[in-house]
Amino acid sequence: MKRPISELIKNYQDKMQFARAFRYALWMIGWDTETEAPRGALEERSIHVGTLSRELHNFSTSQEMIDLVQELFDRKDELDSLMHTEIKKTHKYLMRQLKVPVDEYVEYQMLLSKTQTIWADAKNNNDYNAFKPYLEKIIFFKQKMMSYWQTDTLQGYDVLLDQFEEGMTSTEYDEFFVALKKDLVPFVKGITSLPKQEFSFLNQSYDIDKQKAFSHYIMDVLMFDRTRGLMKESEHPYTSGMTSQDVRWTNHFHEKLITSSIFSAIHELGHATYEQQCNPDLDKTNLGGGTSMAMHESQSRFYENIVGRSFAFWNVHFPKVQALFPSQLKDVTVEEWVKAVNQVENSLIRTEADELTYPLHIMVRYDIERAIMKQELTVEELPQEWNRLMKAYLDIDVPSDREGILQDVHWSSGMFGYFPTYALGSAYAAQIYYAMKRDFDVEDSLASGNTQAINEWLKQKIHWHGSTKTAKQLLLEATNEPFNPQYYIEYLKTKYQSIYR
Amino acid sequence: MKRPISELIKNYQDKMQFARAFRYALWMIGWDTETEAPRGALEERSIHVGTLSRELHNFSTSQEMIDLVQELFDRKDELDSLMHTEIKKTHKYLMRQLKVPVDEYVEYQMLLSKTQTIWADAKNNNDYNAFKPYLEKIIFFKQKMMSYWQTDTLQGYDVLLDQFEEGMTSTEYDEFFVALKKDLVPFVKGITSLPKQEFSFLNQSYDIDKQKAFSHYIMDVLMFDRTRGLMKESEHPYTSGMTSQDVRWTNHFHEKLITSSIFSAIHELGHATYEQQCNPDLDKTNLGGGTSMAMHESQSRFYENIVGRSFAFWNVHFPKVQALFPSQLKDVTVEEWVKAVNQVENSLIRTEADELTYPLHIMVRYDIERAIMKQELTVEELPQEWNRLMKAYLDIDVPSDREGILQDVHWSSGMFGYFPTYALGSAYAAQIYYAMKRDFDVEDSLASGNTQAINEWLKQKIHWHGSTKTAKQLLLEATNEPFNPQYYIEYLKTKYQSIYR
Repeated sequence: MKRPISELIKNYQDKMQFARAFRYALWMIGWDTETEAPRGALEERSIHVGTLSRELHNFSTSQEMIDLVQELFDRKDELDSLMHTEIKKTHKYLMRQLKVPVDEYVEYQMLLSKTQTIWADAKNNNDYNAFKPYLEKIIFFKQKMMSYWQTDTLQGYDVLLDQFEEGMTSTEYDEFFVALKKDLVPFVKGITSLPKQEFSFLNQSYDIDKQKAFSHYIMDVLMFDRTRGLMKESEHPYTSGMTSQDVRWTNHFHEKLITSSIFSAIHELGHATYEQQCNPDLDKTNLGGGTSMAMHESQSRFYENIVGRSFAFWNVHFPKVQALFPSQLKDVTVEEWVKAVNQVENSLIRTEADELTYPLHIMVRYDIERAIMKQELTVEELPQEWNRLMKAYLDIDVPSDREGILQDVHWSSGMFGYFPTYALGSAYAAQIYYAMKRDFDVEDSLASGNTQAINEWLKQKIHWHGSTKTAKQLLLEATNEPFNPQYYIEYLKTKYQSIYR
Repeated sequence: MKRPISELIKNYQDKMQFARAFRYALWMIGWDTETEAPRGALEERSIHVGTLSRELHNFSTSQEMIDLVQELFDRKDELDSLMHTEIKKTHKYLMRQLKVPVDEYVEYQMLLSKTQTIWADAKNNNDYNAFKPYLEKIIFFKQKMMSYWQTDTLQGYDVLLDQFEEGMTSTEYDEFFVALKKDLVPFVKGITSLPKQEFSFLNQSYDIDKQKAFSHYIMDVLMFDRTRGLMKESEHPYTSGMTSQDVRWTNHFHEKLITSSIFSAIHELGHATYEQQCNPDLDKTNLGGGTSMAMHESQSRFYENIVGRSFAFWNVHFPKVQALFPSQLKDVTVEEWVKAVNQVENSLIRTEADELTYPLHIMVRYDIERAIMKQELTVEELPQEWNRLMKAYLDIDVPSDREGILQDVHWSSGMFGYFPTYALGSAYAAQIYYAMKRDFDVEDSLASGNTQAINEWLKQKIHWHGSTKTAKQLLLEATNEPFNPQYYIEYLKTKYQSIYR
């Protein structure tokens, strides 16, 4: 006799709540590690993190859990639409997890527990050879997983791409990047060949306490709810929310880099706004939080670049920066400031790249990942191929592997297929911007001194839905058309033609 | 056939390590709650804290665990001395836990989960009647537990006293408090009847960032190891260490109360030094950290009062405070400063009391707790008895329950038997001080600018041993005699006679 569906749901929800307690503990410990844990704490905590992760893993893949999820999945037509979506997601992840033999999974996790440190040392010592054998092992595991996870419709590199951005395949990314290559590479060359303007005020010292005060000011401008989150410091800024009720983000402050703390703040607050504006009813499901990497990145880049680097924004807020730093900025006009924070430059390091050249950095990585996964490129050949692509797309010579192939942490944590979501996010942001403009005057709304109108629009169209819909669905519904990279190209050309006219 | 003892030990240690992961997670979440969690986080976290606590409790009291601990306890003669001590402690706590019926334990925990809030509201509204029925329930449970936990040698209130200070009974506390009453009450009356000297510089405003800077300076003076701990802010200062490698403490800062942040810092750093100087080999046992409440409090009060309120200390460090706050302190001499921070005053609030009158506040609570547990006093009669005792010991009229019977959080969390350890700690500190003085010139050693000599002595005699020895044992070994309250009385009289001569 079949058990009543309500009983299965109750059982499932209790189990999910139980698992969430472990995730919550691990989240809390991770936050502490990133923001304040003293060095002495790290050894012991790694043991405890191991224990809690193992418990969570055993619980989540127990036979009881598998049977329960399978039964709910088989009877999904009896579920309401939200539970239907949740079970499909849980089932998909669980099946993916179960396809990897436990021993291999453990071996891979143990490999990854070392490789970040090895990569960091290799980078510091500019020694690609020290990292190479580990990168080779990671790729070996990734290729095995690709074979476990492949389906009739999803094969090769597409398997990895789908993990970070559901429904995006290399065919679609190829189209996107071909369009970028065709339009953007020559456009960038045109701009970077112009004589470079110097903005010496950006190289001055800016008191760190005042930079922090400005980050707090920005929090108010973007209407961050401080009763449901907080800002702290960490080496690399990031945002992390367990639920819509507790969204934390970090910033970093360098005396000589005023723009770094300002745009990191706006960027992270974009992520944070997405998380805070999710429907709180989703907090107790697996459908809370942003729906995909690219959609999350679209929000951070929307606020950082489209809003935060606009004239309309600084026309209101530049006087505040100027008042905080009179000696450095008293002779600077808002026009100069906006030009300075939008300066285009061919550069080596992705994380420091400007908005216009940024996607070209992503293209280098995408081309390389695809070639690796197609086994057209060996780890031996990586540095050379990296340098060749940097020359082709950015017209720049790479002087060392530290500033080249070794610069990013991602591959050392097995994150292949992640990079393209950064560029896709920027392109989503542009398409969203054009849709928003059809509804109200975005620039005009900034004159109010905050982002209320923007927040509201994004909340309704995107944030509130959490991950109940895929990024593709959300984009279609929010903008009334499928993903179209032309908006991104048009946005970039319009903006930078006006700045560099 | 008996299993080899080494196998049992290994099994036991694995289980303890497993349990520690849960304690660690709960510790981390608690630290976050006290120091930075946004309000929005609290509802969800209480569910997760419940899940993790329940798991820990179920694991720690499982039949498998009981059998294992019992077997190790029965075969304790086969264990080395450290493991012997550990098993005795584990066994004692486990047996105590098992004596309480699970349903009653859960009911009591659920009661306590509400009563702190109810107490806080009652205090804010000066409404003892709102708290009374809950206090009655707590006492009812406490009395049941006393009956479960009593032994041939331990009965009544002594059962509760033993929980916080192993081996201390009401007979011993009675002797201690009778000695205090006889000598201290008249001595305090003599001093408080003198005309009060005003130190107006204490009532001025002190910039909070500079107060923080001075807390960091004090950290260096007391040689706190920042690679194994950190300072943060919370409403009430406290110290919390999971192991010797990660010891965290908090301070609070009020513009109008410079002395509060200074002496809270020295006090908490006393606790922190104890934790940091424990033998790290004990971190993976249940014998790490301070051995008892009173011994812990003896260390915080040793640093705060005996070191931190001495002329020798301020003779070195007052110039630093003066340099930070020239406008407030430029005309103040170090003699005036020392007199000001040692001013004696009959006051209503325990946590704000000076060193000399502090134990009289404890006596009020001790007398009341003992009478409650002997059922000689009903909750109805508590406020009146409180006010009567405050008049008798401190010669002060209590204007409201908020400043009287409702002032402390302890009873609302079921902590009966805790208060006397505060006074006992101060008395331990004095006895330790006289022993230390026999070995080296304590005042003289402070001229070096830090507490290295003091730290070293305390490390060797007390801190290093963690809780491998009871407080009574440690005190005997460190001072070459059993607990003798006369040192405390002599210390207080000598010090305050000299200040108020």
